[in-house]
Amino acid sequence: MNQKEGSALRIKPWPKKVDHYRVDFLSLSIGVMAAIGIPSQACATTEDKPFRILCFVFNDYETLDLHGPIEMLGHMKNVEITLVGNEKIVRSYQGTRIVTDTSTDYLTPCELFIVVGGIGTRSLVDNALRMEWIKNQVDVSDKVFSVCTGSALLAKAGVLDDINATTNKMAYKWVISLSDKVKWYPRAGWVDDGKFLTSSGVSAGTDAALYFVSQLHGMKEAKRIERLTEYNWNSDANNDPYAVEK
Amino acid sequence: MNQKEGSALRIKPWPKKVDHYRVDFLSLSIGVMAAIGIPSQACATTEDKPFRILCFVFNDYETLDLHGPIEMLGHMKNVEITLVGNEKIVRSYQGTRIVTDTSTDYLTPCELFIVVGGIGTRSLVDNALRMEWIKNQVDVSDKVFSVCTGSALLAKAGVLDDINATTNKMAYKWVISLSDKVKWYPRAGWVDDGKFLTSSGVSAGTDAALYFVSQLHGMKEAKRIERLTEYNWNSDANNDPYAVEK
Repeated sequence: MNQKEGSALRIKPWPKKVDHYRVDFLSLSIGVMAAIGIPSQACATTEDKPFRILCFVFNDYETLDLHGPIEMLGHMKNVEITLVGNEKIVRSYQGTRIVTDTSTDYLTPCELFIVVGGIGTRSLVDNALRMEWIKNQVDVSDKVFSVCTGSALLAKAGVLDDINATTNKMAYKWVISLSDKVKWYPRAGWVDDGKFLTSSGVSAGTDAALYFVSQLHGMKEAKRIERLTEYNWNSDANNDPYAVEK
Repeated sequence: MNQKEGSALRIKPWPKKVDHYRVDFLSLSIGVMAAIGIPSQACATTEDKPFRILCFVFNDYETLDLHGPIEMLGHMKNVEITLVGNEKIVRSYQGTRIVTDTSTDYLTPCELFIVVGGIGTRSLVDNALRMEWIKNQVDVSDKVFSVCTGSALLAKAGVLDDINATTNKMAYKWVISLSDKVKWYPRAGWVDDGKFLTSSGVSAGTDAALYFVSQLHGMKEAKRIERLTEYNWNSDANNDPYAVEK
């Protein structure tokens, strides 16, 4: 059943992932590798409430907008990453297909709501139903993190009014044309303003994700994940080689 | 039907993607954005033979190993990216699920065969059927590109014998323990030796993918994609901050 215009959105609890176990990536040595496949008590997810990350995906989303942050945030301890979309299977701009875990027919309370960008945003901003869903989903999310032109969706949905924010610099003119109520930053890898963390284009989302880890768990944890992924983290939000002139 | 041990693998042609159109990401201006959704003649894939990229995925593959290269290679002109796996739906270590386009029950001739890494490689190296498939799939691929511990799979399958290669530096000891016939490099972002391009851990795959673009289409095209994705490319294969001591 698809959401009808004007009808109220129901809240649905976090989807259970029964087939998933997690082991600690870095702590593996040759010794314990032999035991892989049998999750040990020490390695399995603790029974503490997980940190729930909900990512909104749509056809023609930009691959790295989504998977860069998922790579970094997914290495935090006790985290669950869930995809939400209007269809069961969603296709990236690069042509791969991903399976959503829950639907935009519902609202899903979470700690972090990620809104990615990509060419698909160009038509989505004109989808009133989806804009209404975003507005309502933001209400049940503790923090909202946009990557690239994901901020176009947030701006059009009206949730960035009076917020300091940034966006993809290659699509800057288009995004800022959607709302003059947002305080747009032409030079910033990312901008963190209260409930909203908005990042620049594609790769900047990966950098902003590590920033988010540092805010949540400290710099040591962000550096651990940077090393684990052999990443070259641009940790300075003011270092934006793709800044546009005002 | 699953492949039986000892049975010959059939060659299957490249899967047709009928639902996919591509538009040029960077050339979009506000003017043409209005027309999005209707692929123009000028923007659609040309009828030239596409450059076929086949990516092998398996449960507990590492997210960025796959999606970093896909991001960069997917912005080349006239490219088709296809996923191959043993199951219809494959789960990343970070918990997202992806749909495969073709199966390891077949061999799929391609221009580039990508083998990613991740925790899932630890058990895969002991799967004789899959090792046999990799060996045969390498035979029908023009070039082979491994990311992270993807080189563990190639080494165990025996295709890297006498080849200069590198791998994830966080898992270096384990990978080199799988084969003493490979000429392993403890310090390298990536190593390009004939048919095989092998890269270091996770993020290095994204850098090596841009290197591959530069080899295929020139440095200008690699720089175009770097800028398009607002990436901070480490373009020097010798610059490996995660190198291990011999």
